[in-house]
Amino acid sequence: MPSVFTERLCTAIRRCDGGDVAMRALIGRAIADTLGVAAAGFAEPVTRLTLEAYRGQGAVTWSGAVCESEEAAVMIDAIAAHALDFDDVYLESAIHPSTVILPAILRSGRGHAPDEIIAAFSAGLIAAQAVAARVGLGHYHKGWHGTGTIGAFAAAAAAGRLRRFDEKQLATMFSIVASQSAGLKVNFGTMTKPAHAGFAASAGVRAALLTRAGFTAAADIFGPGGYAELYGTPDGLEEPSDEAYRLRADKVALKLYPCCYGTHRLIGIALDARAKLGNAFCDERLRVRITVPKGSIDVLRYDRPRTGLEAKFSAPYSIAVSLLDGLPTLDHFTDAAVASRGDVKACMERIDVIQNAAQDSGGDIEFGHVTLDVIGSDGATRDSFTRHAIPGSPDDPPSRADVIAKFQSVTAIFERAFSKPFPILQQAADIAEVRAWLPDQDTRASLQRAVAFR
Amino acid sequence: MPSVFTERLCTAIRRCDGGDVAMRALIGRAIADTLGVAAAGFAEPVTRLTLEAYRGQGAVTWSGAVCESEEAAVMIDAIAAHALDFDDVYLESAIHPSTVILPAILRSGRGHAPDEIIAAFSAGLIAAQAVAARVGLGHYHKGWHGTGTIGAFAAAAAAGRLRRFDEKQLATMFSIVASQSAGLKVNFGTMTKPAHAGFAASAGVRAALLTRAGFTAAADIFGPGGYAELYGTPDGLEEPSDEAYRLRADKVALKLYPCCYGTHRLIGIALDARAKLGNAFCDERLRVRITVPKGSIDVLRYDRPRTGLEAKFSAPYSIAVSLLDGLPTLDHFTDAAVASRGDVKACMERIDVIQNAAQDSGGDIEFGHVTLDVIGSDGATRDSFTRHAIPGSPDDPPSRADVIAKFQSVTAIFERAFSKPFPILQQAADIAEVRAWLPDQDTRASLQRAVAFR
Repeated sequence: MPSVFTERLCTAIRRCDGGDVAMRALIGRAIADTLGVAAAGFAEPVTRLTLEAYRGQGAVTWSGAVCESEEAAVMIDAIAAHALDFDDVYLESAIHPSTVILPAILRSGRGHAPDEIIAAFSAGLIAAQAVAARVGLGHYHKGWHGTGTIGAFAAAAAAGRLRRFDEKQLATMFSIVASQSAGLKVNFGTMTKPAHAGFAASAGVRAALLTRAGFTAAADIFGPGGYAELYGTPDGLEEPSDEAYRLRADKVALKLYPCCYGTHRLIGIALDARAKLGNAFCDERLRVRITVPKGSIDVLRYDRPRTGLEAKFSAPYSIAVSLLDGLPTLDHFTDAAVASRGDVKACMERIDVIQNAAQDSGGDIEFGHVTLDVIGSDGATRDSFTRHAIPGSPDDPPSRADVIAKFQSVTAIFERAFSKPFPILQQAADIAEVRAWLPDQDTRASLQRAVAFR
Repeated sequence: MPSVFTERLCTAIRRCDGGDVAMRALIGRAIADTLGVAAAGFAEPVTRLTLEAYRGQGAVTWSGAVCESEEAAVMIDAIAAHALDFDDVYLESAIHPSTVILPAILRSGRGHAPDEIIAAFSAGLIAAQAVAARVGLGHYHKGWHGTGTIGAFAAAAAAGRLRRFDEKQLATMFSIVASQSAGLKVNFGTMTKPAHAGFAASAGVRAALLTRAGFTAAADIFGPGGYAELYGTPDGLEEPSDEAYRLRADKVALKLYPCCYGTHRLIGIALDARAKLGNAFCDERLRVRITVPKGSIDVLRYDRPRTGLEAKFSAPYSIAVSLLDGLPTLDHFTDAAVASRGDVKACMERIDVIQNAAQDSGGDIEFGHVTLDVIGSDGATRDSFTRHAIPGSPDDPPSRADVIAKFQSVTAIFERAFSKPFPILQQAADIAEVRAWLPDQDTRASLQRAVAFR
């Protein structure tokens, strides 16, 4: 007799479809965005090295490269999607959802009806949310990388829904995937971090394959002595509320800037200021004061970054490039850019970031609001801005233009690196909900010239 | 700066060879025994289903079957080796060592010098022992299946030693494999249990492949916030003694009977009695009283088994077949045998198993000693036996004849099922230390007729 949790989870996965028109549109957006960042990710060393380790003729990745096997292709596509840490996030489950879900269901040359892809994607989101509620968000704070651990359940749910498993098969599959659930946060800042997404996606597919073959496994992996006891924390719920099993694609946040999610609200307010004041920040007499809730940007450890990677975790750097250039792009976060941009360095000296003790975030990067004050050489405040929402998050969703601008900038990287369009896009464009977020044909044709976004 | 533990572990793995002649002989024995049980394991449903799920043309398993990829072949060979739970055990690390180590280094058609194979095998044993000391044996009691979790490190160590990684590469590799370390004991009693060995072996090879390709990972997976904090228990040691890094192939125990290791001492004393008294136990007037240390056989839950699987966890059943037939074989643990053997059922009614409260084992199956009293119809004790050591364990090592008898019985199953000799044996026989434990040529030739051992 499975636990209430396992029973509800399996029922929810079995029955889920893509939801209403709005949910389907958001799933289409997530798929388009994930393919875009994966395109750029194929040019990254971590992806190239994995392809090298798994060379062979067994299967085709999203990039058109061949590799050892279908299982390796799933892993490589997921690594590519997470390589730049530019893929979407799902704060409710503390995971990057699409990087583990999409590689488990969208495979090169394997056709599935668009409705089935959408339904399978929604199954992955539900599993991520429900399993996260079961183990508790303390799981992440304790040192587990949710994208690796909980992500494996999300990938399995998607793969199982695609195969139309019944409730008993789904319970078996979750027991198999639990025994492959892993990923430690101490590997952050290394290539093994994106590899976690690859391990999770391939583990999910492996669990689905073994289930379909007829494997047996524990009847209830969330029962006594099971997953929640080994991976859970006291804030987990044995029986989460109805909300945990509901499709909430609207809670997935797109990353609009290719740097740590903790910088995004600061970039947002800098762009707000630039939209109003234009090139004012080139003026060396102006200073900028940004006030943030206490504890909300602790993850941003590099006030004076020396490398592109450090710059991704720098508040002053992110703010400075946004004030000077507008939209931050991947080109801003290279070692060369950090070394050569004297104007950015000078601007950083004119930025003060202050923690507001009266607003204690408790570590929540979404808490409260940030303010930006523009201060003249006379010490008087010339202008003030306030922002609560993180750009791209459910509270400030990206426009279609934002999504397409990002898409064009990342797919252009693939096109320049490999001198061809990103192959999987043609297949994905068969899904109407995805096609709605792709640039139109004229724009696509001119992509090779669109260097502005890089 | 890596921790003392990581530094010592990597140094030990880098430097290890196969040890002295005695150690090398024991490694040869472990390899021969593992291949034998794997041969029979290829006829098991769990292995056949995995082969079905991973069909393809990418690589060859030990059985000669082709499958999707090299990674799948590693997984399948390990599943075959653990399928019958008849493979060796290493109580110091609470894992089945050879089932995860050997598939990571002995690959069909890939030649390595015998010395390299032996050295790599010893690296696997050292890693298993050291990581188990670091996390503590409470890890197993808490619900982790060590063969899956710690076994992944053992497989990686073996694969890394085979590739002659330096200390820095080994540290990277252990960080990568830690993020694939998984396996829950709630999956015991299902096909997913042997699959844990497959997941661990393939994870180890995957970590080695990515390391060789040039991946980066945490500098020290055993440092703060790392593996020991997430998987460890309070009985783990931050800096284990020298002994933890020393090759102790002599501590690996062979399973001589195809049933739960908890029954083996009971079978041993029953065989002791039968060796002296012969067919006496057919006499319906004799009773048998076996006294065991309190708590030492709690794992044997089935006093009146109804299936072959339950019989593997039954004290009275294991004792009865040993008293009546001598050496228990795989044929004793089938559903048909349990249903049809009226004489075994009758004999079980004449066996009393008594827990001795004066000898409290605390759950340690090796603790203290067992006694067997033969009691006549008049109530008088006719004969008494005492046994401390588990047959096949370091305290009562198997003879060459024992090893060969087991080997013949299990390889005969493969030969009957697939009408050919077990393919990988020819390759393994190139290793002198392995060849020493194989039946001689004459015996091999007559194997097809040797049904006595089944």
